[in-house]
Amino acid sequence: MVKNVYENLSKDLIEGKESALLTFMKHLNPREGSIEKKLHISKASLLNDASTMDPELQKEILNTFHSGIPHLYHRSEEASILIEPYFPRPRLIILGGGHIAKPLCEFGFKVGFSVVVADDRPTFANANRFPEADEVICEDFQRVFDTLKLRESDFVVIVTRGHRHDGVCLRNTLKSHPAYIGMIGSKRRVREMMSQLIEEGYDQERLNTVHSPIGLSIGAVTPDEIAVSIIAEVIGCRRALGTKLSNNNKFNWPEFDADVINQICVASEVPRALITIIASKGSVPRKAGAKMIVWLDGRTMGSIGGGCSEANIATLSRDVILNQRFSIEHVDMTGLAAEDEGMVCGGTMEVLIESI
Amino acid sequence: MVKNVYENLSKDLIEGKESALLTFMKHLNPREGSIEKKLHISKASLLNDASTMDPELQKEILNTFHSGIPHLYHRSEEASILIEPYFPRPRLIILGGGHIAKPLCEFGFKVGFSVVVADDRPTFANANRFPEADEVICEDFQRVFDTLKLRESDFVVIVTRGHRHDGVCLRNTLKSHPAYIGMIGSKRRVREMMSQLIEEGYDQERLNTVHSPIGLSIGAVTPDEIAVSIIAEVIGCRRALGTKLSNNNKFNWPEFDADVINQICVASEVPRALITIIASKGSVPRKAGAKMIVWLDGRTMGSIGGGCSEANIATLSRDVILNQRFSIEHVDMTGLAAEDEGMVCGGTMEVLIESI
Repeated sequence: MVKNVYENLSKDLIEGKESALLTFMKHLNPREGSIEKKLHISKASLLNDASTMDPELQKEILNTFHSGIPHLYHRSEEASILIEPYFPRPRLIILGGGHIAKPLCEFGFKVGFSVVVADDRPTFANANRFPEADEVICEDFQRVFDTLKLRESDFVVIVTRGHRHDGVCLRNTLKSHPAYIGMIGSKRRVREMMSQLIEEGYDQERLNTVHSPIGLSIGAVTPDEIAVSIIAEVIGCRRALGTKLSNNNKFNWPEFDADVINQICVASEVPRALITIIASKGSVPRKAGAKMIVWLDGRTMGSIGGGCSEANIATLSRDVILNQRFSIEHVDMTGLAAEDEGMVCGGTMEVLIESI
Repeated sequence: MVKNVYENLSKDLIEGKESALLTFMKHLNPREGSIEKKLHISKASLLNDASTMDPELQKEILNTFHSGIPHLYHRSEEASILIEPYFPRPRLIILGGGHIAKPLCEFGFKVGFSVVVADDRPTFANANRFPEADEVICEDFQRVFDTLKLRESDFVVIVTRGHRHDGVCLRNTLKSHPAYIGMIGSKRRVREMMSQLIEEGYDQERLNTVHSPIGLSIGAVTPDEIAVSIIAEVIGCRRALGTKLSNNNKFNWPEFDADVINQICVASEVPRALITIIASKGSVPRKAGAKMIVWLDGRTMGSIGGGCSEANIATLSRDVILNQRFSIEHVDMTGLAAEDEGMVCGGTMEVLIESI
């Protein structure tokens, strides 16, 4: 059942839908108890057909979407609900599968984008070439946009093998309003293309929002360096949007462990615990939402920040697994030991350990 | 013998020494012939004990070091020498093996640095954690500098777990003059540390050269994003130095295929050819110095730019391997087909194929 809930969550995220995960907890005391059930609800259904839902709970869920971080909602002394908001990873759409696309796909995946690569040449648009991509599309650059269905949360990078294809991609991209548009090209080529588009009736102000020549000016020479300059620019735009649109968590949502979520969906012979940071204060390496799995045989996946604190939590997980319950642990990283070393961390966090 | 030459080359590069590789060619015609021998010579020995060397050849080698790109030196109609200059990859030294060091090590390796990671904790300073690093040092942050022996071509990133350790690293780093020093920390922490160092007698102007808080301002939030902001800053400094010190090829040397060089040192049962771009003009995906290997069974390693041109060269390699000779091929990427597509590439290159 837990597996189904996470599978539905993954499905929603892949389809670009925001959704929430509810964990109903029955307390023996404020820090321990048993998990009653888990529920997955998409934001759309919460807004459209929530007639049967407790209006107070509905309000709490909406607030959680707004804040963008998990919230432990205390219904009574014995009952609480952990509400976790989930936002789909923004897509990094790379048009052109050449020598810049390869490192860019790696970097994009690494910094939390769902990467889509498109090219019209089968040798370039194939999944083996882009193992980190969620989708590789082999399609004419004109028709690929029917498949892509651009979203406002998309980051579009145009790096095809030639400026004619770049032009086709730019014209099609400008029909939508993605969060970022960048196009490769020398200053001269870009100037020529922009004049051409102005002649065709495109708006100058709109064209000014296109990042072209693409990438931060760091004097990049090699394809790998150019990919760094592009991903740095993309991150800058993403985080700036996150600050500007402060309730737009699709841009400023830092903690999401796709690999852990996927792992929960895989059946395990060895009993295991799921660990989630449900709140944090001050300077901590990872914030609310971060997740890891600890197996009874000692294996782990993911991280809640590393170090001694993580090791302690992993040890405590043993008891939680054996007792089939949950436990909420307070982790203090402001202690004297840390101070002595001039530790970077000086915060606290609440961590939920649950047997899954 | 060829194997020894490349092994010596690799050894020199690891030790941070510049050196040249000479390939003596006997021509049947300007484009074909046989390889007579290969010679490896370090720049130091070229300058210090070259009394037995033909002064004209010595001059040609020094010019090649100066230009930073391979040079085909025609001694007569029948004899030429390919002179390839090799510069050690600059080191990216990461002090502190925590959550930023991990992605930074990956990115640093990817963009062509020889990465060294140091931490005083065995669980953080271990080679398994940093598979891309050339060296992982587990040592007290004070003593690690005896092992490191900082060079002027080093890029030093200080990201330990606490500002006291950061301070130890910064003080020791400032005893040398590496190409880049960056230190993590909040604005307040950095300000406090800098005031402290001024009190200790450090020079304000020198301290101003320290990049701290580290990284380009892109609003980075996650460790992976912070690593991108750091590596983008490091690339920017490297390429700026390359432009400023135009004969300082350790900073602007773009093409070096360490994996191909290493592969040549490994004996092969299957006959193979080494392919080297020896000159290029105009816009080409990879420039002089780029290398790849083609085995007779069709396997390849490395790239001279991909596409049809690379495929053609790989096909031609077959004959070269079977005839145990060399061939110099002219590759034209300015053709009509490319123009029609508005291809990015519009250059030509000379490519050496040799049986090894």
